[in-house]
Amino acid sequence: MVAISLRKARTIVRKALEKGRELELKPLSVVVLDAGGHVQAFEREDGASPGRFDIARGKAYGAVMLGMSGSAQLARAEQQAFFMAAMNGAFGGKVVPVPGGVLVRDGKGAVIGAVGVTGDTSDNDALAAMAGIEGAGLTGEA
Amino acid sequence: MVAISLRKARTIVRKALEKGRELELKPLSVVVLDAGGHVQAFEREDGASPGRFDIARGKAYGAVMLGMSGSAQLARAEQQAFFMAAMNGAFGGKVVPVPGGVLVRDGKGAVIGAVGVTGDTSDNDALAAMAGIEGAGLTGEA
Amino acid sequence: MVAISLRKARTIVRKALEKGRELELKPLSVVVLDAGGHVQAFEREDGASPGRFDIARGKAYGAVMLGMSGSAQLARAEQQAFFMAAMNGAFGGKVVPVPGGVLVRDGKGAVIGAVGVTGDTSDNDALAAMAGIEGAGLTGEA
Amino acid sequence: MVAISLRKARTIVRKALEKGRELELKPLSVVVLDAGGHVQAFEREDGASPGRFDIARGKAYGAVMLGMSGSAQLARAEQQAFFMAAMNGAFGGKVVPVPGGVLVRDGKGAVIGAVGVTGDTSDNDALAAMAGIEGAGLTGEA
Repeated sequence: MVAISLRKARTIVRKALEKGRELELKPLSVVVLDAGGHVQAFEREDGASPGRFDIARGKAYGAVMLGMSGSAQLARAEQQAFFMAAMNGAFGGKVVPVPGGVLVRDGKGAVIGAVGVTGDTSDNDALAAMAGIEGAGLTGEA
Repeated sequence: MVAISLRKARTIVRKALEKGRELELKPLSVVVLDAGGHVQAFEREDGASPGRFDIARGKAYGAVMLGMSGSAQLARAEQQAFFMAAMNGAFGGKVVPVPGGVLVRDGKGAVIGAVGVTGDTSDNDALAAMAGIEGAGLTGEA
Repeated sequence: MVAISLRKARTIVRKALEKGRELELKPLSVVVLDAGGHVQAFEREDGASPGRFDIARGKAYGAVMLGMSGSAQLARAEQQAFFMAAMNGAFGGKVVPVPGGVLVRDGKGAVIGAVGVTGDTSDNDALAAMAGIEGAGLTGEA
Repeated sequence: MVAISLRKARTIVRKALEKGRELELKPLSVVVLDAGGHVQAFEREDGASPGRFDIARGKAYGAVMLGMSGSAQLARAEQQAFFMAAMNGAFGGKVVPVPGGVLVRDGKGAVIGAVGVTGDTSDNDALAAMAGIEGAGLTGEA
């Protein structure tokens, strides 16, 4: 399976959390998935609600499985709510179609994983995710 | 596990049911969950429909897992129906995003559990839940 | 739905918990289901593990749905493990076929609900359940 | 929510992975759950198979929900295979009853979370989990 290395995944998580602290966001949770949608690394900050893993993963999982960033999924959900509902049926309810789910691509544009961040507004979550990805020297698509 | 003690949970249930009788509401069902979303106490009044446990738990469970009261969930559902649908996917269909799901916080503001009430209108359910929580000397966020 | 009244359900829960304290059992959890297998009342003692609701309900649910006490289910599981596995398939995984699931019958022998107790050994759980049922003036089948 | 702090959870993960490298184990995956069974932190080493998150979580989740270490669950599964199968039904298939699921207790003996390790033999997984827990100054029950 193509995957972000654990070393880089750790960097993504740390840099995303640092961005959250810098912007004084609410406690964040950050997941890194591989190109198959499987969990590589996750951290939940103290004070976050207990369900944050499922939300973070849902954002990143939808991005990987559909090959669409969270923002693109949101746009589609706003146009065709039934379509994203059908996607959720197809993927066992594991798709959370909002910003904060960010695709990670390699130098040739191939998807090598995705990052999901949750805890603040969806737009701030996406900012933190991008900071994590760029902090690891990778390219994100929010 | 941080949890409301069983002694306090019983008080919440009784005071909520008393409020229901005082206001002449329909038969109520009341659940108390711990800070991990697990059931601590539940009672269903005679005459309530059989599915009330799942509804009461759904209100309280969503509150705990998302760290949002039922009213806040309702507002989000009205703005972004697809988002609360996605949350229900992520949490296995166990989220009921309407008033009557009330967060319980300790003196420092940390969530120590949630109460879910169902049986009458959502707003009356929330009133009964708040009466139960306050009757036990705790602070609720409806 | 035929059901034990809430007043009697409360008595069952309290008397079962009292029996547990009298015998110095580990923290117990007690559920009362109606004749349709739906939750009427539940309490989990402080110190019990968080998953006890599902275990207590599973014991009582199997009793109601199969019309067999927990002891009878255990005997069947020991003779034909595949049969109880199939039952669990049929009932969505909600059957826990061990003592501590006790049928409650009315004066004519009709099932009016079931009690599930968990926390100590299965046999002690069943003792506590029977004490609760008898303390409410009802007849149990362990 | 009672939880191991993120700072300590990170230490557990690192120390468990270091133990794996010291013993030359296969690539490991390590999860830390809070006292409600919710994910706090996770890392999967490069080269591990993609399904390792669910296995690690299953080991730790069963420990929290049942209040039993992986070794105790294994013993029960060997005596009563149908019982652990029923537990898996009750908990939605999320229980993996083998060593490598380790309860973490506070100074008073209360469960504050659990660690799950997978990748090598179950016994080696448990060794790595214990090394992580002890490396964070906490007490484990394997």
